[in-house]
Amino acid sequence: MSGIKNNQLLMNIAIAKAWQYQGLTYPNPAVGALVSYNGEIIAVEAHQKAGTSHAEVLALLEAYKIISKQELLFDTFDANKAHKFLYSLPQNIFSNCTIFVTLEPCSHRGKTPSCASLLAHLKPKKVVIATLDPIKGHDAGVERLQQQGIEVEIAVCEKEALELLEPFLIWQERAFVLFKIAQTSNGKIGGGYLSSKDSLTHVHQLRAVCSRMIIGGNTVRVDRPTLDCRFTGENAPHITIYSKEDNFDRDIPLFSIIGREVKVTNILEDFEKPSFILIEGGEGMLNALKDKIDWLLQYQTPKLSLHNSSYGVELNIEFLHQAKKGIDLMLWSKMV
Amino acid sequence: MSGIKNNQLLMNIAIAKAWQYQGLTYPNPAVGALVSYNGEIIAVEAHQKAGTSHAEVLALLEAYKIISKQELLFDTFDANKAHKFLYSLPQNIFSNCTIFVTLEPCSHRGKTPSCASLLAHLKPKKVVIATLDPIKGHDAGVERLQQQGIEVEIAVCEKEALELLEPFLIWQERAFVLFKIAQTSNGKIGGGYLSSKDSLTHVHQLRAVCSRMIIGGNTVRVDRPTLDCRFTGENAPHITIYSKEDNFDRDIPLFSIIGREVKVTNILEDFEKPSFILIEGGEGMLNALKDKIDWLLQYQTPKLSLHNSSYGVELNIEFLHQAKKGIDLMLWSKMV
Repeated sequence: MSGIKNNQLLMNIAIAKAWQYQGLTYPNPAVGALVSYNGEIIAVEAHQKAGTSHAEVLALLEAYKIISKQELLFDTFDANKAHKFLYSLPQNIFSNCTIFVTLEPCSHRGKTPSCASLLAHLKPKKVVIATLDPIKGHDAGVERLQQQGIEVEIAVCEKEALELLEPFLIWQERAFVLFKIAQTSNGKIGGGYLSSKDSLTHVHQLRAVCSRMIIGGNTVRVDRPTLDCRFTGENAPHITIYSKEDNFDRDIPLFSIIGREVKVTNILEDFEKPSFILIEGGEGMLNALKDKIDWLLQYQTPKLSLHNSSYGVELNIEFLHQAKKGIDLMLWSKMV
Repeated sequence: MSGIKNNQLLMNIAIAKAWQYQGLTYPNPAVGALVSYNGEIIAVEAHQKAGTSHAEVLALLEAYKIISKQELLFDTFDANKAHKFLYSLPQNIFSNCTIFVTLEPCSHRGKTPSCASLLAHLKPKKVVIATLDPIKGHDAGVERLQQQGIEVEIAVCEKEALELLEPFLIWQERAFVLFKIAQTSNGKIGGGYLSSKDSLTHVHQLRAVCSRMIIGGNTVRVDRPTLDCRFTGENAPHITIYSKEDNFDRDIPLFSIIGREVKVTNILEDFEKPSFILIEGGEGMLNALKDKIDWLLQYQTPKLSLHNSSYGVELNIEFLHQAKKGIDLMLWSKMV
């Protein structure tokens, strides 16, 4: 049997799952994992938020539920509880399982215990990895698995895994800059075009995890937005208003959210600092900052509209990932 | 084991494969098939063109190649040869295989022999079907399989399978009308916006299989297109020019392609006739015909452009399927 096609198809499922949490895992990478048991896919999970259980841990817990027909009565996102539970299981419980992970299981103990050590202990039949951990000191995962005699296959869908990983690779070194666009499917902007609760929730989740949002002065003057995370109940992001003049109505809610820092500036700095910057802006902002932007996130609402108001900008991009988000289309691309 | 998740994920792979040939199988339905062997996916295929081998036949042939490590020395798209070959195999060769098909295997003998009879003969372990054949007289496939003691599971991803099948269901009754749009990702039209050879080839393939193309008079006057299928070498489609005035330069290549019928009319008929009508046109055509259109096919090229020339139209749509086509995005939607 070749196995190549099978492993690529299954890894692609794990990669697509990870894309659902792209950006949301900051400062961690987006990672997906899949468990197949006697040739049947029984779990597909992704890392969702820094400080919580990693993808392979969530997938193993889900696999355990299917294999044992038991419910889990603890918070599976609590990484310490999750690891403790998995260590307590009979060691052969995953011996017919193959684990697919989009990134080498972490070998170090950070906010959460090491996944490589856990897998080495649990001894699944095989671990398939899309790409090795690029961070020095985190890259002993494969070795630890192999020391326990676990079969390891690497570089399955590596190109796709590296695209998924790109924001993480960038924010290790400097700011990863994501420009968000909401438009109709034929490019009309300016109407707050998000149809689905799912897309709105996604935007609010991104706002909650980013280091800082940059918005344009006109947006503040005209739209008077609050830019909070009310759909998710999380903390509102710090805001940089990119504007020549500092003539804003300080009474709008934007300025009065507790814990938020609002900066007005004409000179954008901090792009060198490892961080995650989210820009929500119009044509002016896109033109002004296009050399700073790494990726675009376009939400397209399912309509064509009469208009002459798309972004007036010339940009070549590369489509990286497309998926539905509720009824909207979510389209990730990079600048080329 | 639940199996639900596994079967849905695998059926989704077969459905996505079938979408690659959406429209191109006219007058047949788009159908995908996947073969899993001892829990490993070894074949994913789709029906590509009416009169050639069906999806499950192509998938079985591919599976045979993997299982037997033999090459096939005949044209696998020749359905008669393919069936004859598969009937000649030892009957237990697929006994560890589960076949996923997005549509019930055909029970009748049409241009190609019956796939249900073939599967009943080959006796795979299990056949998983997304949706039953809606055509009377073709719907005895499941029964034929079950009579041979083959386990059959139906209605896996049925909603998605019915979306895939919608053009076929429509062109049984009347014309299925597909409007093609090529644009930049922020909606600029009018530049012949297709970046990749893959999208261009796809358009030419659609032209070759459709019953008739409708285009606007202005397109003919201004762009003077040929509207042939030079990328695929197939026959150019019949053309209806929708125009009040018949004042075209008959010397342009459009009018001189052998075997092509060109009609100029102000009154569009034939929508009641079971057929596949492809419209390539601008804003005027989209507005004039929007009540006749079933689906949109948008190709988005990976760029944002300075412009004020998107389609001036108000349309609510529902996104059905999105995938890359070369470097472009291919987006199928229906009118709502």
